[in-house]
Amino acid sequence: MSDKQIEISEVGPRDGLQSIASIMATEDKKRWIAALAAAGIREIEVGSFVPAKILPQLADTAEIVRYARTIPGLTVAVLVPNLRGAQDALAAGAHKLTIPLSVSETHSLKNLRRTHPQVLEEVRGIRALLEQMPADQRPSFEGSLSTCFGCTLEGPVSEDAVLRLGEALLAAGCDEVGLSDTTGYANPVQVRRLIRRVWENLGRDALHGVHLHNTRGQGLANVLAAIEEGITTVDSSMGGIGGCPFAPGASGNIVTEDLVFLLEAMGYPTGINFPRLMQAREILSNALPEEPLYGFIPDAGLPKGFQYATSERRALA
Amino acid sequence: MSDKQIEISEVGPRDGLQSIASIMATEDKKRWIAALAAAGIREIEVGSFVPAKILPQLADTAEIVRYARTIPGLTVAVLVPNLRGAQDALAAGAHKLTIPLSVSETHSLKNLRRTHPQVLEEVRGIRALLEQMPADQRPSFEGSLSTCFGCTLEGPVSEDAVLRLGEALLAAGCDEVGLSDTTGYANPVQVRRLIRRVWENLGRDALHGVHLHNTRGQGLANVLAAIEEGITTVDSSMGGIGGCPFAPGASGNIVTEDLVFLLEAMGYPTGINFPRLMQAREILSNALPEEPLYGFIPDAGLPKGFQYATSERRALA
Repeated sequence: MSDKQIEISEVGPRDGLQSIASIMATEDKKRWIAALAAAGIREIEVGSFVPAKILPQLADTAEIVRYARTIPGLTVAVLVPNLRGAQDALAAGAHKLTIPLSVSETHSLKNLRRTHPQVLEEVRGIRALLEQMPADQRPSFEGSLSTCFGCTLEGPVSEDAVLRLGEALLAAGCDEVGLSDTTGYANPVQVRRLIRRVWENLGRDALHGVHLHNTRGQGLANVLAAIEEGITTVDSSMGGIGGCPFAPGASGNIVTEDLVFLLEAMGYPTGINFPRLMQAREILSNALPEEPLYGFIPDAGLPKGFQYATSERRALA
Repeated sequence: MSDKQIEISEVGPRDGLQSIASIMATEDKKRWIAALAAAGIREIEVGSFVPAKILPQLADTAEIVRYARTIPGLTVAVLVPNLRGAQDALAAGAHKLTIPLSVSETHSLKNLRRTHPQVLEEVRGIRALLEQMPADQRPSFEGSLSTCFGCTLEGPVSEDAVLRLGEALLAAGCDEVGLSDTTGYANPVQVRRLIRRVWENLGRDALHGVHLHNTRGQGLANVLAAIEEGITTVDSSMGGIGGCPFAPGASGNIVTEDLVFLLEAMGYPTGINFPRLMQAREILSNALPEEPLYGFIPDAGLPKGFQYATSERRALA
């Protein structure tokens, strides 16, 4: 992917649905995912391979992965907390696995019930599993550095620890790392600095994506900082649903609808069509009638005379 | 002011209150303004000298200006649509006058009921009035280029027109111009480009401040772009109240509470104290119990371990 294009990775079906009390019906999930893909979203995190008793909202992840794989051109991403989850993800045919590692070990114990060495051991197990597969069928494998901008339990998080754990994830077998503002603590100066430090210390190929929350309203400002630095994949969630259910007080993903506007308005073509995106939102809204959906663009609409981005328009920007 | 410090100009008492149906009692306005100043806000746009039949919410502006002038260290700013308003503003003792000129002439006719030449004629009249005052008592005088990022009525707005009208405002007697995203159409690329073009064409002293809306959720991303370019004054409104009542579909100022967090977290000392800011919000909320107040920081709170900005911390950022 050229650095002129930003990939939006829609995490609503995973990060969104895991955070709410209602359980979306499997057929509704399929309709929603199909509508997201039809709107032009090319990567969707469709679920998480965690025990159903922990997250009953995502108990149908295997079926959802199998369904999503049938949608042409869609990268089907899933969260895996451990080797067992990765085995299930491979069996279902996911294209991309992400394992979270909380830089705050307090949060790690609470979220994944594992210390850092235990998570790294799972990473090594998953890498061994991946190596048994033919290279052309092997999913990509990311280690997501959560709470890397600060933790609601521990407070400030050391950037040196982020770099050290990022290096450890790569050494244990991840293809790349991601930076995750689990708690909504990040600010743009910090986002710029941490991205630069990761690239300087772990190499330019070690990091392409960020997962930023909007808990304190700073989501799109942080996205701006990230993409101006050169980040090419940004997570967001339709209607802003979700956040981390194990970090007290943290809620609110970046709203996909508003992010698409930011990018298109700035001249980054996303390939996403607004009326179709609103159709996907309608499906979500109908499937979860009691959940509030956020976002400004759905209410305010596009500016009069709005034009989608083209490479030509970006060149002029 | 050094470019290390950003001035927050609180426009809630003007832009906020003019947009809502309820009329805040004069004594409540005084309490609110006093609390804002006590929280560390150093510039407040306290009202607008427009006929009471057009904006009855601001009919007490003269009294509010006289009161606000008694608060030590506070810059008392007001909006004046014309010479008549400026006369009233000077009589009351305002420190700063802002006259809006809509780059979209359609919006200008609707908002101010004046063509561009008519607004410029008012500017010349106000300048003549100011010149009659002793220089050390003369208020500063800004021309605000509204709808300069696009218009809900006309659509896209020509940047050359923004530059031409900015030059005309300066020639007619404004000390400086401001850029105003009346409609919430701006994106960060556009914000950066227009600021640069104004400085290139009209000089570095011609522009210090921006008035950006959050209608499409892009407010803080646009602020980030503006201050990274070198803008030193940013308008915002407590609770995000306000917007432009004459631009259909446009609403939502940048939320002061979230803006203060953005700046402090990035290392720009604002001199504003959060608990006191929340006290001012409480006064606003009690005075307007039926109005929704927006903002993330009031709900989410500050990050654990949060520290206010200092010049030293900024140097490290």
